Amino acid sequence: MAVIDSSPPLHVLLAPDSFKGSLSARGVCEAMSAGLDRLGPRFELTRMPLADGGEGSVDVIVAARGHDLRTVSTADALGRPVRASYALSKDHRSAVVEIAAASGLPGIADLPAAALSASTEGTGVLIRDALDHGVEEVVLCLGGSATTDGGTGILRSLGARFLDSQGRDLQPGGGALQNLATVDFSGLAPGLRRVRWRLATDVTSPAWGPTGAAHVFGPQKGASPDDVEALDRGLQRLGHVLSAAGLPVTPQLPGMGAAGATPLGLFAVFEARIESGARMVMELAGFSDAAARADLVVTGEGRFDDQSLQGKVVGEVARQAAGRPVLVIAGSVDVEPEQAYRAGVAAAFSIAPGPASLRSLCAEASDLIARTSYDVFAAVLAGRPSPHPQSLP
Amino acid sequence: MAVIDSSPPLHVLLAPDSFKGSLSARGVCEAMSAGLDRLGPRFELTRMPLADGGEGSVDVIVAARGHDLRTVSTADALGRPVRASYALSKDHRSAVVEIAAASGLPGIADLPAAALSASTEGTGVLIRDALDHGVEEVVLCLGGSATTDGGTGILRSLGARFLDSQGRDLQPGGGALQNLATVDFSGLAPGLRRVRWRLATDVTSPAWGPTGAAHVFGPQKGASPDDVEALDRGLQRLGHVLSAAGLPVTPQLPGMGAAGATPLGLFAVFEARIESGARMVMELAGFSDAAARADLVVTGEGRFDDQSLQGKVVGEVARQAAGRPVLVIAGSVDVEPEQAYRAGVAAAFSIAPGPASLRSLCAEASDLIARTSYDVFAAVLAGRPSPHPQSLP
Repeated sequence: MAVIDSSPPLHVLLAPDSFKGSLSARGVCEAMSAGLDRLGPRFELTRMPLADGGEGSVDVIVAARGHDLRTVSTADALGRPVRASYALSKDHRSAVVEIAAASGLPGIADLPAAALSASTEGTGVLIRDALDHGVEEVVLCLGGSATTDGGTGILRSLGARFLDSQGRDLQPGGGALQNLATVDFSGLAPGLRRVRWRLATDVTSPAWGPTGAAHVFGPQKGASPDDVEALDRGLQRLGHVLSAAGLPVTPQLPGMGAAGATPLGLFAVFEARIESGARMVMELAGFSDAAARADLVVTGEGRFDDQSLQGKVVGEVARQAAGRPVLVIAGSVDVEPEQAYRAGVAAAFSIAPGPASLRSLCAEASDLIARTSYDVFAAVLAGRPSPHPQSLP
Repeated sequence: MAVIDSSPPLHVLLAPDSFKGSLSARGVCEAMSAGLDRLGPRFELTRMPLADGGEGSVDVIVAARGHDLRTVSTADALGRPVRASYALSKDHRSAVVEIAAASGLPGIADLPAAALSASTEGTGVLIRDALDHGVEEVVLCLGGSATTDGGTGILRSLGARFLDSQGRDLQPGGGALQNLATVDFSGLAPGLRRVRWRLATDVTSPAWGPTGAAHVFGPQKGASPDDVEALDRGLQRLGHVLSAAGLPVTPQLPGMGAAGATPLGLFAVFEARIESGARMVMELAGFSDAAARADLVVTGEGRFDDQSLQGKVVGEVARQAAGRPVLVIAGSVDVEPEQAYRAGVAAAFSIAPGPASLRSLCAEASDLIARTSYDVFAAVLAGRPSPHPQSLP
């Protein structure tokens, strides 16, 4: 059945996000490749798994840039010893740290919820290790933290002190911030301020208030309604004290509420920049150049909906695809074609093969992504000038 | 956003089956067209709704050939007066009759199940009307009957008699056939034998036995286990008596068991030919010529599975598509890509937009077919030589 095909191969860039809860971005890339391989040697593939600054971002950047993965002894969000990894560039100029690596919610899932005391100190230890290697840039990916401490844990690990009205160090965690009276940054190494901080997130919440870190993300970190109020007051208190110390405090800036308002402290002290996680990962992975070399771009995620087009991986891929047709393969598709088109998406396909539960789609995601990729690219080939040869193994 | 596109339009043949239980073949065609229209004036469409010889076949042929629909007073499967329609060609040479029109199961759904007494006499009345118009060909579509009478009802309406050992006419229906002793065909009009009979079915069952009409289809017509045995014995008796009368009886011929073994009697008396319903409808609709004029063929059905490739509409479309790429759009897809490819299907797409129940897919079939058609053809266009312009309203 194989047919000799003299037309040049289609250059396809596979640039998916993960299918959250079922398959990593790398797994999605592999499944897509497997599907296209079944259509024979008709494609030249570039695999570029992506992430939005949340879980998996370090893996993606390590894969794309060849950074080294360093594993360090540190503490989890509740202070227990744990080993965690971050990515260090080969030239030691840049580190990529996921806040979830040390201070993530899964790491303390074995203990009762502790939203008030969870702290980012363990992440600070990773960053200190990177700084000890001389990095000039710290990329901090803000997804999946267990904390609501305004970044005070990280600052502590780097030498800052947060004191109550009696001059005593506060307990770790966001709950104690209500009692914050003064800050002491004299212990921060002087070289620290020359470091460029980049905070990657897809969250647009402000630091506090009804749409802030405590109210929106506190409950999923185990905060009771009373805890939420306490955490919100703590963050406001932190802002007040930092501001009184002459530091820049911009609680309403979109993204300030990410990872328990981690940007609040890091912006005040280091002028850390909040960036779109998807955009940053794509920049680090070299997306734009790869898209310009491709004939077609395929992206995907678990659920393709309105939010996807607002700064998430799929929306950014469509925005930056340099005029190449962008095809989306997703667990579910809930965007009107015209809306997708305006955002740069030519077509979107669900992997569902018929009536199916979410659970079964998740369980079979890899096979279904391969199958859908096969079918979508068989349709793409059907549009090529005739004859329409296809070869199958 | 509209882009002037100077490339010639793609000629697409839309040739779907119905989505059983949710949308007629014509409705599927309209939904597909609506989806393609949203991609702008890029396509030249030929709409050819198809059927497999079952329900909807007459509608499809009326639409394709411009036959007239004639409505006639006749009887339902239990003898009650009813009006039913069949298609008559404008030149009065050919009639297309659905057995379900007069002798269908839905027509007697208001009464208790009556598998033993249900008769095809009402269908015979429609055929008699067509013969009175001078037709030379009778196409009888065998899907959906309530009967298991071996075609004796139709023969009776045309003048045949089925008698017991006392020379009395049998009661109508398959149950009475056990008592058949002799047949009397002297009442059949002499001209009848010059008529060409074509029986359309996708059933491959033999007339009787464990995979025959009574055993396989009896229960869904309301036959109890005892009724099934009685009906099976009746059909065997009919075969025996016809054979004894010197008529050709071939109970094992695939399709003899269709519509309660209607072909058994019609083959013996008129040498009626059993044909693939899908193939016959496609021939009457002019599928082959239309496919040869198209760049691409789209077909579809409710459930695309192994059976689809064995004589059903989708499998026949793929077989007869003259080398054009065939794309399938279905409620559910349950065929491996390699198997589909070998059968001539380039790609298959489910309309499911994500996790969903059968009920919701059926309820929204029209919108989902339109959406899927849009996406599939956006992918087809993405494969066309660049640039890849698209226009949207």
